Amino acid sequence: MNQLDRHDTIRAVAYADGVLRLLDQRRLPFTQETIECRNADEVAGAIRDLAVRGAPAIGIAAAWGVVLEAQRLASAGQAITAQALEPAMTHLNAARPTAVNLAWALARMRAVLARAPADAPDALAREAQSIQDEDLAANRRMGELGAELIAPDSGVLTHCNTGSLATAGFGTALGVIRAGAANGKITQVYAGETRPWLQGARLTIWELLQDKIPARLIADSAASHLMKSGEVQWVIVGADRIAANGDTANKIGTYQLAISARHHGVKFMVVAPSSTVDMATPDGAHIHIELRDAGELFGVGGQRTVADGAQAWNPVFDVTPAELIDALVTERGVIERPDAQRMRAMFA
Amino acid sequence: MNQLDRHDTIRAVAYADGVLRLLDQRRLPFTQETIECRNADEVAGAIRDLAVRGAPAIGIAAAWGVVLEAQRLASAGQAITAQALEPAMTHLNAARPTAVNLAWALARMRAVLARAPADAPDALAREAQSIQDEDLAANRRMGELGAELIAPDSGVLTHCNTGSLATAGFGTALGVIRAGAANGKITQVYAGETRPWLQGARLTIWELLQDKIPARLIADSAASHLMKSGEVQWVIVGADRIAANGDTANKIGTYQLAISARHHGVKFMVVAPSSTVDMATPDGAHIHIELRDAGELFGVGGQRTVADGAQAWNPVFDVTPAELIDALVTERGVIERPDAQRMRAMFA
Repeated sequence: MNQLDRHDTIRAVAYADGVLRLLDQRRLPFTQETIECRNADEVAGAIRDLAVRGAPAIGIAAAWGVVLEAQRLASAGQAITAQALEPAMTHLNAARPTAVNLAWALARMRAVLARAPADAPDALAREAQSIQDEDLAANRRMGELGAELIAPDSGVLTHCNTGSLATAGFGTALGVIRAGAANGKITQVYAGETRPWLQGARLTIWELLQDKIPARLIADSAASHLMKSGEVQWVIVGADRIAANGDTANKIGTYQLAISARHHGVKFMVVAPSSTVDMATPDGAHIHIELRDAGELFGVGGQRTVADGAQAWNPVFDVTPAELIDALVTERGVIERPDAQRMRAMFA
Repeated sequence: MNQLDRHDTIRAVAYADGVLRLLDQRRLPFTQETIECRNADEVAGAIRDLAVRGAPAIGIAAAWGVVLEAQRLASAGQAITAQALEPAMTHLNAARPTAVNLAWALARMRAVLARAPADAPDALAREAQSIQDEDLAANRRMGELGAELIAPDSGVLTHCNTGSLATAGFGTALGVIRAGAANGKITQVYAGETRPWLQGARLTIWELLQDKIPARLIADSAASHLMKSGEVQWVIVGADRIAANGDTANKIGTYQLAISARHHGVKFMVVAPSSTVDMATPDGAHIHIELRDAGELFGVGGQRTVADGAQAWNPVFDVTPAELIDALVTERGVIERPDAQRMRAMFA
């Protein structure tokens, strides 16, 4: 796996000795600064303010936030009960509304508490570590599964950042791209800028440069022109929430890529851990889409570009209907052309 | 026309007494600075460096550039001949490759020279003024024609800047929007940011604020999610070059909007003066697309956002095939569902 390791050098979330260290993704690519969270409030703040981002990474960070709160209660001589931890968990859960992994990770922590272990803080820490380790293993597995779908010498387009920065490591969609680059199937990656936060420009391009994978940045609006040129065979994206029928919420702009991919006969792949699948949500119409502050569109990096008094509409996710998805890859396997029946067969 | 005048207050290109004054569009919306061009070289530089932009405005500026060169020759005691002016015209024509209006305006100036008028500098100045006046009149006419197609209480989405800044005044696509807002048909405008130069964010939003038309900025990649929401009934865009079969080159991202509009049953309107129609170009495959420096994607307003060593692909136009266009509006009339035959009937 030498070739693969060469393409997988970045880790963004690390816990040790009562401190959760997060690579501050707002400062990348120019400053590699780690922020240290010592309690659940600081973790919730880091999630809310996008210092840590990416649905799987948010879930992992939130799980460690619960551990930090349990340690705080223990050192104050308080009992580690579900009730005592609930305020912190509610606070963590509210930090971002769209990613289901957040609620999923907190549910796993609640399940540990429900077993009322004698060594509660340690048991919670073991669970948080398991969530993190399982995510990395799932990403490696999804990388293999997704790369198998790709023909040799392919170009691919990705959106947002779904890499090591967004996960425990390796990445979801970017994990498939890492695996496909390592085995020679993917020879050129295109990454959309991903306005307004520029995760593609700032983070994905940085990851791909670090890991020596050939990449070109494009304006989000150049994607259709690129597809028409024949340079890409797959669009590969992550997911923040996948409904029971396969409808997929992901970064704003994903839906547009799926429409255009279908128009051009380019294949469309969604890559996400099974924790992203939310069988309790019947379809995309039931997924709550986060609207963020209009001000995010008024500038870049503190530089205002829009006249005072302007208004904006700033949804940061959209829903891609299942019928536009050619392959849904989770660590449990691949579903081609997902629908409610195929989703049930794998996830019910 | 009181209501209309309230929505039409901006002029970006003005010639007087040997000086062409251009509202520097690189500095908007925060600094309303006028640059003064006193010779053709300065005009070519202003076109190349995007101080003046928008296909019709480029043509008008280039025509005045020829006038300035004729004045320079006259004051040096040289003859005002086609041959003497050719180097300046070649230089002006090369400043931007995609907009056909540039070549069209220079052809009109050449035709004046071919008549070898005794008062050459004045005759050229009259022609440049005619090009400018006709453009404004054409925009007013297109505004009427385009607005007639729109149902009351409509929302519209536009891209890039096609307004007073891009023309002699009033605008093409934004002229239709001005006319539709004035007569109450358009109640909400959405404008895409238009990466990488942010003409929508910086210029269109500024124009609409100045002229009191309700507008919301969106990320370019939010357009499909917006269309799905049912908030827009028309996408209205300009054009840099329209081929003989109706295929239309316009700002990068236009093609993507057309694909998505068709997918959602949203109507798609192209608005451009007949000078944008290039019957010598059979179809979109024959339109040269300008690739600009990759560095334009590496930051905003001098603020670098992308890691050093990154590569990018930066086409600044794309081609929308005629079959995705519901209405082509020029000052000569409206062509619904343009094709080669309908184009010939109006423009041959």
